[in-house]
Amino acid sequence: MSGGTGKDPSRLTPRGAATRDRIVATAADLMHRQGVAATTLDQIVLACDVSKSQLYHYFPNKDALIADVIAAQASRVILHQNSLLEQLHSMDDLEKWRDLLVAGMHRDAGYRCPLGSLANELVGRSGHAHPLLAAAFDSLRDALAGGLARLQEEGELGSEVTADELALGVIAALQGGYLLAATMQDEQPFRLAIDMALSRIRALAADR
Amino acid sequence: MSGGTGKDPSRLTPRGAATRDRIVATAADLMHRQGVAATTLDQIVLACDVSKSQLYHYFPNKDALIADVIAAQASRVILHQNSLLEQLHSMDDLEKWRDLLVAGMHRDAGYRCPLGSLANELVGRSGHAHPLLAAAFDSLRDALAGGLARLQEEGELGSEVTADELALGVIAALQGGYLLAATMQDEQPFRLAIDMALSRIRALAADR
Repeated sequence: MSGGTGKDPSRLTPRGAATRDRIVATAADLMHRQGVAATTLDQIVLACDVSKSQLYHYFPNKDALIADVIAAQASRVILHQNSLLEQLHSMDDLEKWRDLLVAGMHRDAGYRCPLGSLANELVGRSGHAHPLLAAAFDSLRDALAGGLARLQEEGELGSEVTADELALGVIAALQGGYLLAATMQDEQPFRLAIDMALSRIRALAADR
Repeated sequence: MSGGTGKDPSRLTPRGAATRDRIVATAADLMHRQGVAATTLDQIVLACDVSKSQLYHYFPNKDALIADVIAAQASRVILHQNSLLEQLHSMDDLEKWRDLLVAGMHRDAGYRCPLGSLANELVGRSGHAHPLLAAAFDSLRDALAGGLARLQEEGELGSEVTADELALGVIAALQGGYLLAATMQDEQPFRLAIDMALSRIRALAADR
Protein backbone atom coordinates (compact mmCIF):
# COMPACT_ATOMS: atom_id res chain seq x y z
CA MET A 1 0.00 0.00 0.00
CA SER A 2 1.60 3.23 -1.10
CA GLY A 3 -0.12 6.59 -1.03
CA GLY A 4 2.95 8.70 -1.68
CA THR A 5 3.98 10.61 -4.74
CA GLY A 6 7.55 9.38 -4.45
CA LYS A 7 9.33 6.96 -6.75
CA ASP A 8 7.08 4.06 -7.77
CA PRO A 9 8.11 1.19 -5.42
CA SER A 10 7.38 -1.42 -8.13
CA ARG A 11 10.26 -0.04 -10.20
CA LEU A 12 12.85 -0.32 -7.43
CA THR A 13 15.52 -2.98 -7.04
CA PRO A 14 15.05 -5.18 -3.94
CA ARG A 15 17.80 -3.22 -2.23
CA GLY A 16 16.22 0.08 -3.25
CA ALA A 17 12.84 -1.09 -1.98
CA ALA A 18 14.39 -2.10 1.35
CA THR A 19 16.02 1.33 1.75
CA ARG A 20 12.75 3.03 0.88
CA ASP A 21 10.85 0.90 3.43
CA ARG A 22 13.47 1.67 6.07
CA ILE A 23 13.09 5.41 5.48
CA VAL A 24 9.28 5.16 5.79
CA ALA A 25 9.50 3.03 8.96
CA THR A 26 11.99 5.43 10.58
CA ALA A 27 9.91 8.47 9.61
CA ALA A 28 6.74 6.78 10.93
CA ASP A 29 8.41 6.08 14.27
CA LEU A 30 9.84 9.59 14.68
CA MET A 31 6.57 11.27 13.61
CA HIS A 32 4.59 9.06 15.99
CA ARG A 33 6.81 10.01 18.91
CA GLN A 34 7.55 13.65 18.13
CA GLY A 35 4.79 14.77 15.81
CA VAL A 36 4.93 15.36 12.06
CA ALA A 37 5.85 19.04 11.98
CA ALA A 38 8.49 18.53 14.69
CA THR A 39 10.20 15.78 12.67
CA THR A 40 12.73 17.12 10.14
CA LEU A 41 14.15 15.36 7.09
CA ASP A 42 17.60 15.85 8.69
CA GLN A 43 16.50 13.81 11.74
CA ILE A 44 15.15 11.04 9.51
CA VAL A 45 18.32 10.90 7.41
CA LEU A 46 20.43 10.74 10.57
CA ALA A 47 18.26 8.08 12.25
CA CYS A 48 18.28 5.65 9.31
CA ASP A 49 21.80 6.37 8.10
CA VAL A 50 21.07 7.35 4.52
CA SER A 51 22.23 10.49 2.71
CA LYS A 52 19.83 13.33 2.04
CA SER A 53 20.22 12.79 -1.71
CA GLN A 54 19.21 9.13 -1.22
CA LEU A 55 16.08 10.30 0.63
CA TYR A 56 15.25 12.75 -2.17
CA HIS A 57 15.80 9.94 -4.68
CA TYR A 58 12.80 8.14 -3.18
CA PHE A 59 10.72 11.10 -1.98
CA PRO A 60 10.68 14.44 -3.83
CA ASN A 61 9.56 16.29 -0.64
CA LYS A 62 8.31 15.84 2.91
CA ASP A 63 4.65 15.65 1.81
CA ALA A 64 5.43 12.59 -0.32
CA LEU A 65 7.10 10.93 2.64
CA ILE A 66 4.18 11.85 4.96
CA ALA A 67 1.76 10.24 2.50
CA ASP A 68 3.74 7.00 2.67
CA VAL A 69 3.91 7.18 6.47
CA ILE A 70 0.11 7.48 6.60
CA ALA A 71 -0.26 4.57 4.16
CA ALA A 72 2.13 2.41 6.21
CA GLN A 73 0.46 3.18 9.56
CA ALA A 74 -3.04 2.76 8.12
CA SER A 75 -2.12 -0.55 6.54
CA ARG A 76 -0.63 -1.83 9.80
CA VAL A 77 -3.59 -0.77 11.99
CA ILE A 78 -6.24 -1.94 9.52
CA LEU A 79 -4.61 -5.33 8.85
CA HIS A 80 -4.35 -5.90 12.61
CA GLN A 81 -7.95 -4.87 13.28
CA ASN A 82 -9.24 -6.87 10.31
CA SER A 83 -7.55 -10.00 11.62
CA LEU A 84 -9.14 -9.45 15.06
CA LEU A 85 -12.57 -8.43 13.81
CA GLU A 86 -12.95 -11.23 11.28
CA GLN A 87 -13.38 -13.47 14.31
CA LEU A 88 -16.28 -11.46 15.69
CA HIS A 89 -19.28 -13.82 15.77
CA SER A 90 -20.85 -13.29 19.19
CA MET A 91 -21.18 -10.73 21.98
CA ASP A 92 -18.54 -12.76 23.85
CA ASP A 93 -16.15 -12.17 20.95
CA LEU A 94 -16.88 -8.43 21.20
CA GLU A 95 -15.95 -8.49 24.90
CA LYS A 96 -12.71 -10.34 24.02
CA TRP A 97 -11.91 -7.67 21.43
CA ARG A 98 -12.53 -5.00 24.08
CA ASP A 99 -10.21 -6.83 26.51
CA LEU A 100 -7.46 -7.02 23.87
CA LEU A 101 -7.66 -3.27 23.23
CA VAL A 102 -7.54 -2.49 26.96
CA ALA A 103 -4.61 -4.90 27.41
CA GLY A 104 -2.86 -3.10 24.52
CA MET A 105 -2.93 0.09 26.59
CA HIS A 106 -0.55 -1.50 29.11
CA ARG A 107 2.03 -2.24 26.46
CA ASP A 108 2.10 1.13 24.69
CA ALA A 109 3.33 3.55 27.30
CA GLY A 110 2.47 6.50 25.08
CA TYR A 111 -1.23 5.55 24.87
CA ARG A 112 -1.26 6.91 21.32
CA CYS A 113 -3.11 5.61 18.30
CA PRO A 114 -0.76 6.00 15.30
CA LEU A 115 -3.66 6.97 13.02
CA GLY A 116 -5.36 9.25 15.53
CA SER A 117 -2.24 11.24 16.22
CA LEU A 118 -1.53 11.69 12.49
CA ALA A 119 -5.15 12.77 11.92
CA ASN A 120 -5.03 15.25 14.76
CA GLU A 121 -1.99 16.96 13.42
CA LEU A 122 -2.66 16.82 9.68
CA VAL A 123 -6.41 17.00 9.13
CA GLY A 124 -7.46 20.41 7.83
CA ARG A 125 -3.82 21.41 7.58
CA SER A 126 -2.37 19.30 4.81
CA GLY A 127 -4.45 18.87 1.65
CA HIS A 128 -2.45 15.81 0.71
CA ALA A 129 -2.91 13.93 3.97
CA HIS A 130 -6.59 14.55 4.62
CA PRO A 131 -8.20 12.13 2.10
CA LEU A 132 -5.71 9.39 3.02
CA LEU A 133 -6.63 9.70 6.70
CA ALA A 134 -10.36 9.87 5.99
CA ALA A 135 -10.04 6.68 3.91
CA ALA A 136 -8.12 4.97 6.73
CA PHE A 137 -10.87 5.73 9.25
CA ASP A 138 -13.49 4.56 6.73
CA SER A 139 -11.65 1.22 6.51
CA LEU A 140 -11.50 0.92 10.30
CA ARG A 141 -15.22 1.64 10.54
CA ASP A 142 -15.90 -0.94 7.82
CA ALA A 143 -13.86 -3.58 9.68
CA LEU A 144 -15.82 -3.10 12.90
CA ALA A 145 -19.17 -2.60 11.12
CA GLY A 146 -18.62 -5.87 9.25
CA GLY A 147 -18.34 -7.74 12.53
CA LEU A 148 -21.32 -5.95 14.09
CA ALA A 149 -23.46 -6.57 10.99
CA ARG A 150 -22.74 -10.31 11.39
CA LEU A 151 -24.03 -10.13 14.97
CA GLN A 152 -27.16 -8.40 13.68
CA GLU A 153 -27.68 -10.98 10.91
CA GLU A 154 -27.25 -13.82 13.37
CA GLY A 155 -29.82 -12.20 15.66
CA GLU A 156 -27.42 -11.56 18.55
CA LEU A 157 -27.77 -7.82 18.19
CA GLY A 158 -30.74 -5.57 17.42
CA SER A 159 -30.83 -3.62 14.16
CA GLU A 160 -32.46 -0.39 15.44
CA VAL A 161 -29.09 1.29 14.88
CA THR A 162 -27.06 0.48 11.77
CA ALA A 163 -23.76 -1.38 12.17
CA ASP A 164 -21.99 1.56 10.47
CA GLU A 165 -23.32 4.03 13.04
CA LEU A 166 -22.46 1.79 15.99
CA ALA A 167 -18.96 1.23 14.60
CA LEU A 168 -18.32 4.94 14.08
CA GLY A 169 -19.46 5.74 17.62
CA VAL A 170 -17.16 3.07 19.08
CA ILE A 171 -14.17 4.27 17.04
CA ALA A 172 -14.77 7.86 18.17
CA ALA A 173 -14.88 6.69 21.80
CA LEU A 174 -11.61 4.78 21.31
CA GLN A 175 -9.90 7.82 19.81
CA GLY A 176 -11.03 10.11 22.62
CA GLY A 177 -10.06 7.41 25.12
CA TYR A 178 -6.53 7.28 23.71
CA LEU A 179 -6.24 11.06 23.94
CA LEU A 180 -7.43 11.30 27.55
CA ALA A 181 -5.35 8.28 28.59
CA ALA A 182 -2.25 9.90 27.12
CA THR A 183 -3.06 13.24 28.74
CA MET A 184 -3.76 11.76 32.17
CA GLN A 185 -1.12 9.00 31.80
CA ASP A 186 -3.71 6.53 33.00
CA GLU A 187 -5.63 3.85 31.11
CA GLN A 188 -8.83 4.50 33.07
CA PRO A 189 -10.33 7.06 30.63
CA PHE A 190 -9.77 4.61 27.78
CA ARG A 191 -11.60 1.85 29.66
CA LEU A 192 -14.45 4.20 30.59
CA ALA A 193 -14.77 5.42 27.00
CA ILE A 194 -14.87 1.99 25.38
CA ASP A 195 -17.23 0.59 28.02
CA MET A 196 -19.59 3.53 27.70
CA ALA A 197 -19.78 2.99 23.93
CA LEU A 198 -20.09 -0.79 24.24
CA SER A 199 -22.85 -0.45 26.84
CA ARG A 200 -25.05 0.85 24.01
CA ILE A 201 -24.30 -2.31 22.02
CA ARG A 202 -24.76 -4.51 25.09
CA ALA A 203 -28.18 -2.91 25.60
CA LEU A 204 -29.15 -3.63 21.98
CA ALA A 205 -28.03 -7.25 22.51
CA ALA A 206 -29.96 -7.58 25.78
CA ASP A 207 -33.15 -6.39 24.04
CA ARG A 208 -33.06 -9.49 21.80
CA MET B 1 -4.99 32.65 34.56
CA SER B 2 -1.38 32.47 33.47
CA GLY B 3 0.60 29.26 33.21
CA GLY B 4 3.57 30.73 31.38
CA THR B 5 7.07 31.40 32.60
CA GLY B 6 7.12 34.75 30.82
CA LYS B 7 7.10 38.20 32.41
CA ASP B 8 4.70 38.38 35.34
CA PRO B 9 1.54 39.97 33.88
CA SER B 10 0.75 41.73 37.17
CA ARG B 11 3.88 43.87 36.77
CA LEU B 12 2.99 45.12 33.30
CA THR B 13 1.60 48.54 32.38
CA PRO B 14 -1.93 48.41 30.94
CA ARG B 15 -0.44 48.91 27.48
CA GLY B 16 2.16 46.19 28.09
CA ALA B 17 -0.54 43.80 29.31
CA ALA B 18 -2.62 44.53 26.21
CA THR B 19 0.34 43.77 23.92
CA ARG B 20 1.06 40.58 25.83
CA ASP B 21 -2.59 39.46 25.55
CA ARG B 22 -2.58 40.24 21.84
CA ILE B 23 0.53 38.07 21.33
CA VAL B 24 -1.10 35.17 23.22
CA ALA B 25 -4.40 35.49 21.31
CA THR B 26 -2.60 35.60 17.95
CA ALA B 27 -0.40 32.63 18.85
CA ALA B 28 -3.45 30.68 20.09
CA ASP B 29 -5.27 31.30 16.82
CA LEU B 30 -2.30 30.35 14.59
CA MET B 31 -1.50 27.25 16.68
CA HIS B 32 -5.14 26.16 16.62
CA ARG B 33 -5.28 26.44 12.82
CA GLN B 34 -1.78 25.27 11.86
CA GLY B 35 -0.54 23.23 14.82
CA VAL B 36 1.98 24.23 17.48
CA ALA B 37 5.18 22.94 15.86
CA ALA B 38 4.16 24.41 12.50
CA THR B 39 3.69 27.89 14.01
CA THR B 40 6.92 29.90 14.17
CA LEU B 41 7.68 32.93 16.32
CA ASP B 42 8.31 34.82 13.06
CA GLN B 43 4.72 34.13 11.92
CA ILE B 44 3.35 35.30 15.28
CA VAL B 45 5.41 38.49 15.23
CA LEU B 46 4.25 39.22 11.67
CA ALA B 47 0.58 38.46 12.41
CA CYS B 48 0.31 40.73 15.46
CA ASP B 49 2.65 43.45 14.24
CA VAL B 50 5.13 43.49 17.11
CA SER B 51 8.91 43.25 16.89
CA LYS B 52 10.69 40.04 17.80
CA SER B 53 12.43 41.83 20.67
CA GLN B 54 9.02 42.89 22.02
CA LEU B 55 7.90 39.25 21.90
CA TYR B 56 11.06 38.15 23.74
CA HIS B 57 10.42 40.91 26.29
CA TYR B 58 7.23 39.08 27.34
CA PHE B 59 8.20 35.47 26.58
CA PRO B 60 11.78 34.19 26.98
CA ASN B 61 11.11 31.32 24.53
CA LYS B 62 8.42 29.47 22.58
CA ASP B 63 7.68 27.10 25.50
CA ALA B 64 6.73 30.04 27.70
CA LEU B 65 4.37 31.31 25.03
CA ILE B 66 2.88 27.81 24.51
CA ALA B 67 2.17 27.60 28.25
CA ASP B 68 0.22 30.86 28.07
CA VAL B 69 -1.65 29.68 24.98
CA ILE B 70 -2.72 26.53 26.85
CA ALA B 71 -3.78 28.61 29.85
CA ALA B 72 -5.79 30.99 27.66
CA GLN B 73 -7.56 28.21 25.71
CA ALA B 74 -8.23 26.18 28.87
CA SER B 75 -9.63 29.21 30.64
CA ARG B 76 -11.92 30.03 27.71
CA VAL B 77 -13.24 26.46 27.29
CA ILE B 78 -13.67 25.82 31.02
CA LEU B 79 -15.41 29.14 31.73
CA HIS B 80 -17.81 28.48 28.86
CA GLN B 81 -18.53 24.89 29.97
CA ASN B 82 -18.88 25.93 33.61
CA SER B 83 -21.48 28.54 32.66
CA LEU B 84 -23.43 25.89 30.70
CA LEU B 85 -23.08 23.08 33.20
CA GLU B 86 -24.00 25.14 36.27
CA GLN B 87 -27.51 25.05 34.85
CA LEU B 88 -27.64 21.25 34.73
CA HIS B 89 -30.48 20.20 37.06
CA SER B 90 -32.43 17.60 35.07
CA MET B 91 -32.05 15.07 32.28
CA ASP B 92 -33.78 17.62 30.03
CA ASP B 93 -30.99 20.08 30.80
CA LEU B 94 -28.47 17.39 29.81
CA GLU B 95 -30.22 16.97 26.46
CA LYS B 96 -30.13 20.76 25.98
CA TRP B 97 -26.39 20.75 26.70
CA ARG B 98 -25.96 17.99 24.12
CA ASP B 99 -27.96 20.01 21.55
CA LEU B 100 -25.80 23.08 22.17
CA LEU B 101 -22.59 21.08 21.58
CA VAL B 102 -23.98 19.56 18.38
CA ALA B 103 -25.16 23.00 17.20
CA GLY B 104 -21.64 24.30 17.89
CA MET B 105 -20.30 21.85 15.31
CA HIS B 106 -22.14 23.76 12.57
CA ARG B 107 -20.45 27.00 13.45
CA ASP B 108 -16.86 25.78 13.67
CA ALA B 109 -16.04 24.53 10.20
CA GLY B 110 -12.80 23.04 11.48
CA TYR B 111 -14.57 20.74 13.98
CA ARG B 112 -11.60 21.11 16.32
CA CYS B 113 -11.57 21.34 20.11
CA PRO B 114 -8.88 23.90 21.03
CA LEU B 115 -7.82 21.85 24.06
CA GLY B 116 -7.97 18.48 22.31
CA SER B 117 -5.79 19.60 19.45
CA LEU B 118 -3.19 21.08 21.82
CA ALA B 119 -3.21 17.87 23.88
CA ASN B 120 -2.79 15.69 20.83
CA GLU B 121 0.24 17.56 19.67
CA LEU B 122 1.93 18.29 22.99
CA VAL B 123 1.17 15.45 25.40
CA GLY B 124 4.16 13.18 25.87
CA ARG B 125 6.27 15.52 23.77
CA SER B 126 6.62 18.70 25.81
CA GLY B 127 7.31 18.32 29.52
CA HIS B 128 6.10 21.84 30.14
CA ALA B 129 2.73 21.48 28.47
CA HIS B 130 1.66 18.09 29.76
CA PRO B 131 0.63 18.96 33.36
CA LEU B 132 -1.18 22.11 32.18
CA LEU B 133 -3.24 20.06 29.72
CA ALA B 134 -3.93 17.30 32.25
CA ALA B 135 -5.17 19.96 34.70
CA ALA B 136 -7.40 21.48 32.02
CA PHE B 137 -9.08 18.13 31.31
CA ASP B 138 -9.45 17.55 35.07
CA SER B 139 -11.32 20.85 35.29
CA LEU B 140 -13.57 19.94 32.37
CA ARG B 141 -14.35 16.58 33.98
CA ASP B 142 -15.09 18.33 37.29
CA ALA B 143 -17.47 20.76 35.58
CA LEU B 144 -19.50 17.95 33.99
CA ALA B 145 -19.22 15.66 37.02
CA GLY B 146 -20.56 18.46 39.23
CA GLY B 147 -23.70 18.64 37.11
CA LEU B 148 -24.13 14.86 36.96
CA ALA B 149 -23.62 14.54 40.72
CA ARG B 150 -26.49 17.00 41.21
CA LEU B 151 -28.72 14.77 39.06
CA GLN B 152 -27.69 11.80 41.21
CA GLU B 153 -28.36 13.68 44.47
CA GLU B 154 -31.76 14.80 43.23
CA GLY B 155 -32.58 11.18 42.35
CA GLU B 156 -32.86 11.77 38.58
CA LEU B 157 -29.88 9.57 37.88
CA GLY B 158 -28.66 6.27 39.35
CA SER B 159 -25.42 6.18 41.30
CA GLU B 160 -24.15 2.76 40.17
CA VAL B 161 -21.45 4.64 38.25
CA THR B 162 -19.75 7.66 39.84
CA ALA B 163 -20.33 11.09 38.33
CA ASP B 164 -16.55 11.39 37.75
CA GLU B 165 -16.46 8.21 35.67
CA LEU B 166 -19.52 9.15 33.64
CA ALA B 167 -18.07 12.60 32.99
CA LEU B 168 -14.70 11.24 31.86
CA GLY B 169 -16.39 8.79 29.49
CA VAL B 170 -18.49 11.57 27.95
CA ILE B 171 -15.50 13.88 27.53
CA ALA B 172 -13.52 11.11 25.83
CA ALA B 173 -16.45 10.51 23.46
CA LEU B 174 -16.59 14.24 22.66
CA GLN B 175 -12.87 14.37 21.93
CA GLY B 176 -12.99 11.36 19.62
CA GLY B 177 -16.12 12.78 18.02
CA TYR B 178 -14.32 16.05 17.24
CA LEU B 179 -11.41 14.13 15.69
CA LEU B 180 -13.57 11.93 13.45
CA ALA B 181 -15.83 14.86 12.48
CA ALA B 182 -12.75 16.85 11.42
CA THR B 183 -11.31 13.88 9.54
CA MET B 184 -14.56 13.05 7.74
CA GLN B 185 -15.63 16.72 7.46
CA ASP B 186 -19.03 15.68 8.72
CA GLU B 187 -20.70 16.28 12.08
CA GLN B 188 -22.31 12.80 12.09
CA PRO B 189 -19.47 11.01 13.99
CA PHE B 190 -19.65 13.70 16.68
CA ARG B 191 -23.40 13.18 17.10
CA LEU B 192 -23.00 9.40 17.17
CA ALA B 193 -20.21 9.63 19.75
CA ILE B 194 -22.01 11.96 22.16
CA ASP B 195 -25.30 10.04 21.83
CA MET B 196 -23.61 6.68 22.43
CA ALA B 197 -22.04 8.05 25.64
CA LEU B 198 -25.24 9.78 26.77
CA SER B 199 -27.27 6.62 26.13
CA ARG B 200 -25.44 5.12 29.10
CA ILE B 201 -26.56 8.04 31.26
CA ARG B 202 -30.10 7.91 29.83
CA ALA B 203 -30.24 4.22 30.78
CA LEU B 204 -29.14 5.02 34.35
CA ALA B 205 -31.88 7.68 34.47
CA ALA B 206 -34.54 5.34 33.07
CA ASP B 207 -33.71 2.76 35.76
CA ARG B 208 -34.86 5.22 38.42
